[in-house]
Amino acid sequence: MKNANASPSPARGPADHDVRDQIVAAATEHFSLYGYEKTTVSDLAKAIGFSKAYIYKFFESKQAIGEMICANCLREIENDVRAAVDAAERPPEKLRRMFRTIVESSLRLFFQDRKLYEIAASAAGERWQATVAYEARIQGLLQDIVQQGRLSGDFERKTPLDETAKAIYLVMRPYLHPLLLQYNFENTEEAPAQLSSLVLRSLSP
Amino acid sequence: MKNANASPSPARGPADHDVRDQIVAAATEHFSLYGYEKTTVSDLAKAIGFSKAYIYKFFESKQAIGEMICANCLREIENDVRAAVDAAERPPEKLRRMFRTIVESSLRLFFQDRKLYEIAASAAGERWQATVAYEARIQGLLQDIVQQGRLSGDFERKTPLDETAKAIYLVMRPYLHPLLLQYNFENTEEAPAQLSSLVLRSLSP
Repeated sequence: MKNANASPSPARGPADHDVRDQIVAAATEHFSLYGYEKTTVSDLAKAIGFSKAYIYKFFESKQAIGEMICANCLREIENDVRAAVDAAERPPEKLRRMFRTIVESSLRLFFQDRKLYEIAASAAGERWQATVAYEARIQGLLQDIVQQGRLSGDFERKTPLDETAKAIYLVMRPYLHPLLLQYNFENTEEAPAQLSSLVLRSLSP
Repeated sequence: MKNANASPSPARGPADHDVRDQIVAAATEHFSLYGYEKTTVSDLAKAIGFSKAYIYKFFESKQAIGEMICANCLREIENDVRAAVDAAERPPEKLRRMFRTIVESSLRLFFQDRKLYEIAASAAGERWQATVAYEARIQGLLQDIVQQGRLSGDFERKTPLDETAKAIYLVMRPYLHPLLLQYNFENTEEAPAQLSSLVLRSLSP
């Protein structure tokens, strides 16, 4: 673990966001070894060398730490997805890559690290803010791709844009929602390609 | 409960399938009151007035009884779906009704009776034979509707039939799979219509 005094701020010791990041980084490591459900804030404090009171200065509960870890995981997936979408030239290919990458990246992240997956699954089950925001951003990205395809002439323009984007989102949801993904393992090989093809047929002008 | 001697078979007392049906009917009632997980075969035997040994003559385990109950639930949903599909004239409307009815019927059955839902969810999670067979029959029904639509000229004919039916099945799966359905409640109002529209756009010739 990094020293808590590594980035001092002149006025009041280390900047708050640095300490928060350090707690989250240490908690991520600790949860990934010992599990999220079983660890208490006391265990965590002992393991990372801070007092429980000090941790509570930055996070109101274990869930708040879990939520931050979950937000980081989802942000990582989202970055992969955006990079894949940006690398594709035309909207139909952007859509295919989006679907493929969201599945691959979720599987990689979660199944490298089953214990972190549990945090994300719990977050999604309880509708934590981090997962709600993630789902909204993914819907936004989808809507952008559909709109680009309408402008380029690749996609039809008759259906209301928000309705189309929402329906495509519903098709993808079982593969991007951490809790649902575990029930769709048997389909993660073929489903992204098959469902992308179906969606693209539905978008043809 | 019906009398075990109601339909005697001359050779060896009540026909086996009658006794099996009686055990399943009594067990359904008992599980729906007391839950499946918590009830043992001994509890069940006591409650329905047979000896444990007698029940084991017909079912090798509690799971075997649960599987039969689950098969009955799924068969009931399937009957609703087939009736709705048969009542519609053209293939596009058959598809819409199929989707709508599968959601309505699953919700009705399971949420009238939360305890029976737990059996079906457990069955689906463990891939019991009853749910595997149900999923296969639903896929078959979908393929029949798509094929009818191709013959009537309502649907395109370029995509391989089995690929098309499989992809539509994947779109419906979160709403027909008992374990997945519970994570899709917030979408059960709108999703069937929105996803049916998307699927029908993908099928247009």
